[in-house]
Amino acid sequence: MEFIITASDATCGARAGEIITSRGTIRTPVFMPVATQGTVRALMIRDIEEIGFDIILSNAYHLYLRPGVEVIAQAGGLNNFMNFHKPILTDSGGFQIFSLAEFCRIEDHGVEFRSHRDGSLHFFSPELVLDIQKVIGSDIMMVLDQCIHYPVNEEIARASMERTIAWARLSHEHWRGSFNPEEQALFAIVQGSVYRNLRRECVERLLELEFSGYAIGGLSVGEPKTSYREITEFTCGLLPRNKPRYMMGVGSPIEILNAIRHGTDMFDSVMPTRIARNGTIFTSNGRVNIKSSQYEFDFTPLDGRCACYVCRNFTRSYLRHLYRTGEISSLIYNTYHNLYFMKSFMDEIRKSITNKTFLESYKKWEGIYQNDNKIDGMDKNQAELQADE
Amino acid sequence: MEFIITASDATCGARAGEIITSRGTIRTPVFMPVATQGTVRALMIRDIEEIGFDIILSNAYHLYLRPGVEVIAQAGGLNNFMNFHKPILTDSGGFQIFSLAEFCRIEDHGVEFRSHRDGSLHFFSPELVLDIQKVIGSDIMMVLDQCIHYPVNEEIARASMERTIAWARLSHEHWRGSFNPEEQALFAIVQGSVYRNLRRECVERLLELEFSGYAIGGLSVGEPKTSYREITEFTCGLLPRNKPRYMMGVGSPIEILNAIRHGTDMFDSVMPTRIARNGTIFTSNGRVNIKSSQYEFDFTPLDGRCACYVCRNFTRSYLRHLYRTGEISSLIYNTYHNLYFMKSFMDEIRKSITNKTFLESYKKWEGIYQNDNKIDGMDKNQAELQADE
Repeated sequence: MEFIITASDATCGARAGEIITSRGTIRTPVFMPVATQGTVRALMIRDIEEIGFDIILSNAYHLYLRPGVEVIAQAGGLNNFMNFHKPILTDSGGFQIFSLAEFCRIEDHGVEFRSHRDGSLHFFSPELVLDIQKVIGSDIMMVLDQCIHYPVNEEIARASMERTIAWARLSHEHWRGSFNPEEQALFAIVQGSVYRNLRRECVERLLELEFSGYAIGGLSVGEPKTSYREITEFTCGLLPRNKPRYMMGVGSPIEILNAIRHGTDMFDSVMPTRIARNGTIFTSNGRVNIKSSQYEFDFTPLDGRCACYVCRNFTRSYLRHLYRTGEISSLIYNTYHNLYFMKSFMDEIRKSITNKTFLESYKKWEGIYQNDNKIDGMDKNQAELQADE
Repeated sequence: MEFIITASDATCGARAGEIITSRGTIRTPVFMPVATQGTVRALMIRDIEEIGFDIILSNAYHLYLRPGVEVIAQAGGLNNFMNFHKPILTDSGGFQIFSLAEFCRIEDHGVEFRSHRDGSLHFFSPELVLDIQKVIGSDIMMVLDQCIHYPVNEEIARASMERTIAWARLSHEHWRGSFNPEEQALFAIVQGSVYRNLRRECVERLLELEFSGYAIGGLSVGEPKTSYREITEFTCGLLPRNKPRYMMGVGSPIEILNAIRHGTDMFDSVMPTRIARNGTIFTSNGRVNIKSSQYEFDFTPLDGRCACYVCRNFTRSYLRHLYRTGEISSLIYNTYHNLYFMKSFMDEIRKSITNKTFLESYKKWEGIYQNDNKIDGMDKNQAELQADE
């Protein structure tokens, strides 16, 4: 994996780049749609190809439980299994174990947990989690980390940070010894809750090893928006410029913009697809709640400036009708549009960085989405979102 | 509307033909996918176009309740509302009123009923039902008829037949007086339960008026398969050769084949899409239950002889995984395949009629689907199917 910065904004940390993998190039900043179980909810994979995403995200924990590693192995990896032939990033499942599992017990060498599906007992070590991602064939793998909820006191936050660092070292050793790092990149995850000193220490100690990229974990888990933004800016400032920075679990336009401003390159969230299924639509004028009776006779598209299949072919009136009648096609059309919006939004931001107009673009979108608190990750626990997706 | 028979089988009643409407030509025998609420469940409309259906079916009762006639009117008809520009046949809703409505009271001039959605009170006359279909812009309209359950005694069956004939007369009069029959065709519906004398009388009295086509209603509602087949053959034999014959609510391959043999041209059923959502797949070798553990490591397509998007791109193992994890894409892919199967199946039958090989084709498919009782309309009340769809 190679990371090239192709343009930087002179007035802030925003940068455009390319992550080059053997399965294709990922243009950054990038939003990665979530295919937790090996499928993006409510769409065919050809829709994802058509929208033009460079990369999707899947999840080692979920795929390990179902369909199981042996199925993925015999299928020849996840790309073949789901018939998607661009890069895949997989989360290790740390977040899911700590948020979904019925029971989990942390040991020095890993975590014992019971499946949230059937209560069966499993043990994940940092090495096993990489081995699973090897079978999956992930282009970008994530280390096993210890996630914590918000709020936690500093002592607990430190302990989880220490564990995360220890596991990152074991992961790094296993990766250098048993993987082809050119084929499968490995990202470390910075923890430390809302404590600056912990975030700093975590970054410094992770930088003693060379990872392919660095993710910011443990945010968007219920902390106040001001803390979230402050820690984002602070942590981004500590991370090396020449490696991709990945903000985990953030998908609201305004928070993506904010993180890009501080130099973040990668994002994922189930939020755009989840709210689509609940009838909330992203547009170039802000949110539209398609349930609303004001759209009963509205024969305009969801977004008059959107070029997606849904906006070119259907009206708000029709889409409201599908939502009200509980049709599956409502989930499909709304999801398609919201993901197309996310792709277009990221394309526009990326282009503005290249064209040296990032701050104008930032201000435009901030004006449109600044009051969008209701649907960003702040008021919705990420675990809830993940469980739902 | 014009109906041309392009080929007939010398040994049985099977015929191939074309129904020519101002929105396009419908090649018969034809299977019409059901878009009850103005959408085929679990697919985008472009999928229906891609599969190549010549016509879809919708429902005046459902559209009248939601989104309401005024919305459809302002949208410029159902074709524009749902953005499908081939012919649409609409059922009047008689079947739905008698099977779904909370309450219905039959009067000479129509039926009073309460919505199955909100209990609101409505009155449908034969004329109003046509007026609704006028707004919808249906290429083929169905008369309001009185449907009855099975079993019923002959007295009740006669009364419902008399009502159906009286309403057909009112419908015919209204149609000739207030419609452009070239733009909107009208089909009558033959009732009479399993009583041959009633079926005969119903056909004879309906033939006193000239309708665009004739449908066989009141079958596949719980009667024994032998009765169903006997009445199908008997009623088909009474209907004029030069008009399309439409067997309402039948969608199992074996029963479609059987009805084609007696000269039926048109079919609709929610069954292929409904069973798809439950994991049952039609293939050229019979049914596949994708839930089955035997497919865990089966990396072959659903149907090796099928050219559909799903069979060209995904394995049974993957589709089983999507089904097991409750993914919406499971509903999508299974539905896509089953409708593609229905289209290909009808195409093959039609071609065999043209090529004078219908009986060979019939025997081949009979061999494959003869034991398919579990999923045809016989053991599943049509009302249940409709309610579900």
